[in-house]
Amino acid sequence: MRNRYVNQLKDLNVQLLKMGAMVQNIIETAVQGLAKQDLEMARKVYELDDAIDELELEIEQECMCLFALQQPIARDLRVIGTILKIITDLERMGDYAVNIAKVTLDIGDERLIKPLIDIPKMAMLTEDMVKKSLDAFMKEDIELAEEVAYDDEAVDQLYENIYMELINMMIEKPETIQQATHLLFVGRYLERIADHATNIGERIIYMATGKRVKIN
Amino acid sequence: MRNRYVNQLKDLNVQLLKMGAMVQNIIETAVQGLAKQDLEMARKVYELDDAIDELELEIEQECMCLFALQQPIARDLRVIGTILKIITDLERMGDYAVNIAKVTLDIGDERLIKPLIDIPKMAMLTEDMVKKSLDAFMKEDIELAEEVAYDDEAVDQLYENIYMELINMMIEKPETIQQATHLLFVGRYLERIADHATNIGERIIYMATGKRVKIN
Repeated sequence: MRNRYVNQLKDLNVQLLKMGAMVQNIIETAVQGLAKQDLEMARKVYELDDAIDELELEIEQECMCLFALQQPIARDLRVIGTILKIITDLERMGDYAVNIAKVTLDIGDERLIKPLIDIPKMAMLTEDMVKKSLDAFMKEDIELAEEVAYDDEAVDQLYENIYMELINMMIEKPETIQQATHLLFVGRYLERIADHATNIGERIIYMATGKRVKIN
Repeated sequence: MRNRYVNQLKDLNVQLLKMGAMVQNIIETAVQGLAKQDLEMARKVYELDDAIDELELEIEQECMCLFALQQPIARDLRVIGTILKIITDLERMGDYAVNIAKVTLDIGDERLIKPLIDIPKMAMLTEDMVKKSLDAFMKEDIELAEEVAYDDEAVDQLYENIYMELINMMIEKPETIQQATHLLFVGRYLERIADHATNIGERIIYMATGKRVKIN
């Protein structure tokens, strides 16, 4: 019984890592789609998001099965509870990637008001945070989970830069207002994705220590 | 055993309704704080959010206890799984209210660029959606859950109006850009809160029918 349980939990971890990889990929696709104004890539994001939603549901059902069929002990309960929270955060990240793709489709082939530099940087950082937070979960590594919070500060700083830059651009060139607003939102979406990665970090610390922390 | 379980589930429902009421209150406080430029109210929002976070954790732990101590049958599992999802959505709404309060504090006593009309309307609608979605959960009322989705369309429409109005204002009066951007984000936060209420509606339909729907 216990052995079967441990195996099911291992499967669950594999699924979770897969979901994490899909989320990294959707962020990358969404931001590259925007930077290259590649509408095909933007449309691809919608498909990727559907697949993420499906996988979330699958993992959730497996968690429920584990609850129902086995009688998980206290620690396992915390682990499964954490997985349930992590997949919700991952799923939301997918939604934000879709929001970014929407912006790409809205902008269409209208020329970008500036080459995108900080936004792809933010994307890289957030992708890395997603990876790191899942590694921290697998290894139950508190330090790594805390590192995610430090990365979040770097993302916030980049967002701050983007915000100031775009506001100034709007003031100087009112013709950029519409697109600058779009890009401002993209910055915000990435900042939110990073927040969700930080949530995951916090949950891992909670799982490992029983302590509730707010690291962002 | 079963009786005790039913009682615990009832307690859980009471807690959930309480959390819903707190979320309605935090949205109201955040938006009124902004409309009246009442910085005290804005600061109050942070406290309310802490209380919501606490309650979320409590409810979550009670769900875990139910999983561990009892052996919930299939239907109960779905109900508890739904509660776990609902509280995540409610907790996020609290975060968005805090974002609105941040805007209020940022604007400070700088004069509002326009009297707020649509934003309080959006707030009222979203508060109502929160209430309705929890009613739908309690009564397991699919029609009511679907109604939440219709309300979401009205919220989206209001957001659309706000968006166009503020973009035009920025173009005509560049000196409003900074504040208009803030207000644009507030509109977006409310729109997201409404999305979370719609998520709750979708979960209830899933709980009741086993069918996964995307109503927004």
